Amino acid sequence: MDLATIIGMVVGGTVIIIAIMLGGSFGAFVDMPSMLIVIGGGMAATLIRFPLAGVMVAFQTGGKVAFTHTKVESRELIDKIAEMGDIVRRAGPLGLESVEIDEPNLAKGAQMIADGYDGSFIRESMELARDQYLTRLMEGQRVFKSLGDAAPAFGMIGTLVGLVQMLGNMDDPSAIGPSMAVALLTTLYGAVISNLICLPVADKLTAKLGFEEINQTLIIDGVMSVRDGKSPALIREMLVAYLPENQRSEELPEAA
Amino acid sequence: MDLATIIGMVVGGTVIIIAIMLGGSFGAFVDMPSMLIVIGGGMAATLIRFPLAGVMVAFQTGGKVAFTHTKVESRELIDKIAEMGDIVRRAGPLGLESVEIDEPNLAKGAQMIADGYDGSFIRESMELARDQYLTRLMEGQRVFKSLGDAAPAFGMIGTLVGLVQMLGNMDDPSAIGPSMAVALLTTLYGAVISNLICLPVADKLTAKLGFEEINQTLIIDGVMSVRDGKSPALIREMLVAYLPENQRSEELPEAA
Amino acid sequence: MDLATIIGMVVGGTVIIIAIMLGGSFGAFVDMPSMLIVIGGGMAATLIRFPLAGVMVAFQTGGKVAFTHTKVESRELIDKIAEMGDIVRRAGPLGLESVEIDEPNLAKGAQMIADGYDGSFIRESMELARDQYLTRLMEGQRVFKSLGDAAPAFGMIGTLVGLVQMLGNMDDPSAIGPSMAVALLTTLYGAVISNLICLPVADKLTAKLGFEEINQTLIIDGVMSVRDGKSPALIREMLVAYLPENQRSEELPEAA
Amino acid sequence: MDLATIIGMVVGGTVIIIAIMLGGSFGAFVDMPSMLIVIGGGMAATLIRFPLAGVMVAFQTGGKVAFTHTKVESRELIDKIAEMGDIVRRAGPLGLESVEIDEPNLAKGAQMIADGYDGSFIRESMELARDQYLTRLMEGQRVFKSLGDAAPAFGMIGTLVGLVQMLGNMDDPSAIGPSMAVALLTTLYGAVISNLICLPVADKLTAKLGFEEINQTLIIDGVMSVRDGKSPALIREMLVAYLPENQRSEELPEAA
Amino acid sequence: MDLATIIGMVVGGTVIIIAIMLGGSFGAFVDMPSMLIVIGGGMAATLIRFPLAGVMVAFQTGGKVAFTHTKVESRELIDKIAEMGDIVRRAGPLGLESVEIDEPNLAKGAQMIADGYDGSFIRESMELARDQYLTRLMEGQRVFKSLGDAAPAFGMIGTLVGLVQMLGNMDDPSAIGPSMAVALLTTLYGAVISNLICLPVADKLTAKLGFEEINQTLIIDGVMSVRDGKSPALIREMLVAYLPENQRSEELPEAA
Repeated sequence: MDLATIIGMVVGGTVIIIAIMLGGSFGAFVDMPSMLIVIGGGMAATLIRFPLAGVMVAFQTGGKVAFTHTKVESRELIDKIAEMGDIVRRAGPLGLESVEIDEPNLAKGAQMIADGYDGSFIRESMELARDQYLTRLMEGQRVFKSLGDAAPAFGMIGTLVGLVQMLGNMDDPSAIGPSMAVALLTTLYGAVISNLICLPVADKLTAKLGFEEINQTLIIDGVMSVRDGKSPALIREMLVAYLPENQRSEELPEAA
Repeated sequence: MDLATIIGMVVGGTVIIIAIMLGGSFGAFVDMPSMLIVIGGGMAATLIRFPLAGVMVAFQTGGKVAFTHTKVESRELIDKIAEMGDIVRRAGPLGLESVEIDEPNLAKGAQMIADGYDGSFIRESMELARDQYLTRLMEGQRVFKSLGDAAPAFGMIGTLVGLVQMLGNMDDPSAIGPSMAVALLTTLYGAVISNLICLPVADKLTAKLGFEEINQTLIIDGVMSVRDGKSPALIREMLVAYLPENQRSEELPEAA
Repeated sequence: MDLATIIGMVVGGTVIIIAIMLGGSFGAFVDMPSMLIVIGGGMAATLIRFPLAGVMVAFQTGGKVAFTHTKVESRELIDKIAEMGDIVRRAGPLGLESVEIDEPNLAKGAQMIADGYDGSFIRESMELARDQYLTRLMEGQRVFKSLGDAAPAFGMIGTLVGLVQMLGNMDDPSAIGPSMAVALLTTLYGAVISNLICLPVADKLTAKLGFEEINQTLIIDGVMSVRDGKSPALIREMLVAYLPENQRSEELPEAA
Repeated sequence: MDLATIIGMVVGGTVIIIAIMLGGSFGAFVDMPSMLIVIGGGMAATLIRFPLAGVMVAFQTGGKVAFTHTKVESRELIDKIAEMGDIVRRAGPLGLESVEIDEPNLAKGAQMIADGYDGSFIRESMELARDQYLTRLMEGQRVFKSLGDAAPAFGMIGTLVGLVQMLGNMDDPSAIGPSMAVALLTTLYGAVISNLICLPVADKLTAKLGFEEINQTLIIDGVMSVRDGKSPALIREMLVAYLPENQRSEELPEAA
Repeated sequence: MDLATIIGMVVGGTVIIIAIMLGGSFGAFVDMPSMLIVIGGGMAATLIRFPLAGVMVAFQTGGKVAFTHTKVESRELIDKIAEMGDIVRRAGPLGLESVEIDEPNLAKGAQMIADGYDGSFIRESMELARDQYLTRLMEGQRVFKSLGDAAPAFGMIGTLVGLVQMLGNMDDPSAIGPSMAVALLTTLYGAVISNLICLPVADKLTAKLGFEEINQTLIIDGVMSVRDGKSPALIREMLVAYLPENQRSEELPEAA
């Protein structure tokens, strides 16, 4: 679970709900047609922007990474890979079968070493998996960004539709207030969806993308070194070069 | 047919129409003069921005590509070109006449090989066709972008015109509501045209442009190789270099 | 005459005027003080941004080019220059006096060849003329852009002035509507001036600038070649290199 | 204390409070739920954007640097380091224990020299401290920027919530005014938090970041030179190269 | 005096005052607390953004240059420097004491030559003066830009404060209009300060900065050449290289 995302959304949602409850009933803020315009319209504009198949996959991957993906520290990855290198030197490739590995791509690499696949095949398979994973993440980021741009626009469109309807039927003055309230709901939905969900998630995916790019490349090179039976110390030294300089310095004393 | 574009527009339009129907009659949302201001004004501002002849062609090409152009997978193109190479080696250039080719520029290239044109003439003709096609696509993208920028501006101009008229004739208070409703229609039209049609289509054309640039160049080099009688395997290996790296990896096992 | 600019402005203006006429009298939309605020204020802000002398010249040149400048096709220029080269080889420099040349800078160059000026003097004079012409065009583009940015701002300032006046004198409720109508006129003027005139003209000047840069440099090199008595074929071959690649290909078969 | 930040906030706050007091009671401008929406919502959106642990540290470091961090002049640092170099040559590394040093990282470096640590260890420790400090500053800048973007958005969301509530309960016309007043408070809070606090502080942190990057690197190289027992004149000459050119010139005469 | 700046501000101010006078009394548009919020708030936000000492100096220098600084033509500077070179060759350095020089930095350089200072000292002093002058100009540009961004924001804050006060006290309907009028004044002030003064002045300073950078460097190299007793023709030829190409061409014939 990505705590920051969850906490942020819960806090943001709670704050808005409290504000609503303090001023009256919650029911006045729920209107399905308004929801339909903002979410349906935002999704429609996003669909036009991207190829069909990509949108759903990107939306799913992006959502999953933003909400549930625990950030794996690069340093933990290096420790785990060095441990794998140690096992291979002591117990041979088959020893990897009993190692518990959380990161899915690293686990897949360990399995392929244990299965005795050819080095260049392992590298190609893993690079392909990495590229597809990063591409899906990037498309997920773009889909959330597009939704975050389109939601307020369709919120405004919904409010304009409501205003035109209200202004065309002003015979009953007592109905003006409630009609206008409903008209404003789409603008409110659009603002919340954009500012509390889509744009922050897109920003978080951008950050995770940079981070995952380093980690996944580190994993591939680590797995190749493990397969070649390099010593844990050598593996560690080589992989430390992937870390940003400030983390690297912290690493060095440990390696010494 | 580009399904995503069609689905997106149908969904977006349906959502807005449902919102309108739920709140009253559809007729209140149709106003020809308002339509005239937004579309006419947006087209006028676009006309000033671009050379006359270009606007119409760009608009047409852009619309056609965005709505009906099926994305041809680069990999399918490579398969087809390799097949053409095989036919030429087996049955000579004339054998290409019986091959069925969907992509128009590739078909044109095959025809020129079958007709026995000179290699440098084929390359020049095809490069010219490619450049003109890409230029039209790019201009189409800019025309849709310009329309997407101008439509909301003319929507606002129309609403201001309506407001000034309404405010100047406030003798009959019962007419204020309907007049204001009509005034808001131009803003609504501008927002829908921009956010549901023009800006998403411009974004889709940008994406297709990048894609077509690779495909068309791949086609030209493929046709030249076929004409030179290169082996299908060699053609395939050469063209794979055009693919982005993640697709290339997927290709390699097949080629092996 | 630049047809696209003229058509665009006529269409845009007509559309707005029709919208006004349909809803009442045209007179309600003409208000000299409002016009004064928007145009005067926009010009004032532009004056502060640029050196005094430059604004007027830039405004004039920009306006002239955007509205009346026929786009001279580079290919026609090359044909004309090749024709001039042919004449000089057959009839000597003086033969150029009888050639009819539309493009003013090319005509000036032909005249200088006929007058027997020194080569380096001709090149320097023409380069100076070109640089000053392009600088004026670029400053014209910036002046129109600045006006397009300032007009809506002064439209808003005018509306605020009108609103403050109206709100300060609300004794007569029947005067509120018309006062507010007048107050909104400046915003309307600012939006029309910016979106229908200034910003599109600035965009058109940007496009023409790129185009003229190629043409004027082509003219200078062409005139120098003509003066040196180079053969028409050689001149044509050399100048074709100035064309963008897609036009060049179209040119080559003709040259062959 | 960073006087400019303090003065700016006091002046800005006073000006707004005076405006409030002149027009009535201050109490009408305090509304805890409104405060909650803007600050809570802004923090929530910021939490989603960044990793959890980082936000608090970045917020704290950023705030501390923006408000209390006295800008240490690079020239004073050079003077102090040259003085340290003099002391080490005269009294040995232990002499540094009695020198009073304000800048914390320079003090830490002096202590490490006095404690006789190894040169490469000192450099690594100090580089690590510098990188972590600059990273925290940069993240602090981003957190304040994100808050400055999110606060007005949640101000608008709060106002929309209030408007919907007010419009839904218009039975008592006398309550409309006060309800609307409360609804506008969130927009007011968002504008003040963004324009008076978050965005200016983010800008100040950007400026300080560039400044600190030079200073901290200068400190590290200075400490290394002091440890190597270089002469004060040599240290001074070397460190002057870190200054921007205009400050350097001013320094040279003194060094001569 | 910079005529364009003065004319622009006078025209812009006059236009706004005429609009005010036509619609009623000028007094309704003067409100000291509103002025205080916009100017005080804008200055406060600017103070936070920049170091304390810098803001005042930058504001002063920027204002002086934007309003009173006559643009000195580079060509006049070259003529003057060539004249100085002539005098030094004929009458020795002391001859410079009687030359009248308008440009302050050039005058300072001439004085230093006459006083017989060392060449490298003159260069260093002048480079320092140039760098400090350009830095102050650049900071002045940033201060005006920051004010131009902050003024409308505090205008909006002031209007929100006024609206909340008005809405909280709606017992006397006749007071609503005037209260609202006063509330709108801050928005009006913010728009005028930003669009008529700060942003155009920032743009003008940007333009002058580029221009002064060339001029001041030209002056330094010119003074050094004069001090070295180079011939006027040689000085002229060398300095012409600083001019942009289109002015240079114009210069060459004169030099010939």
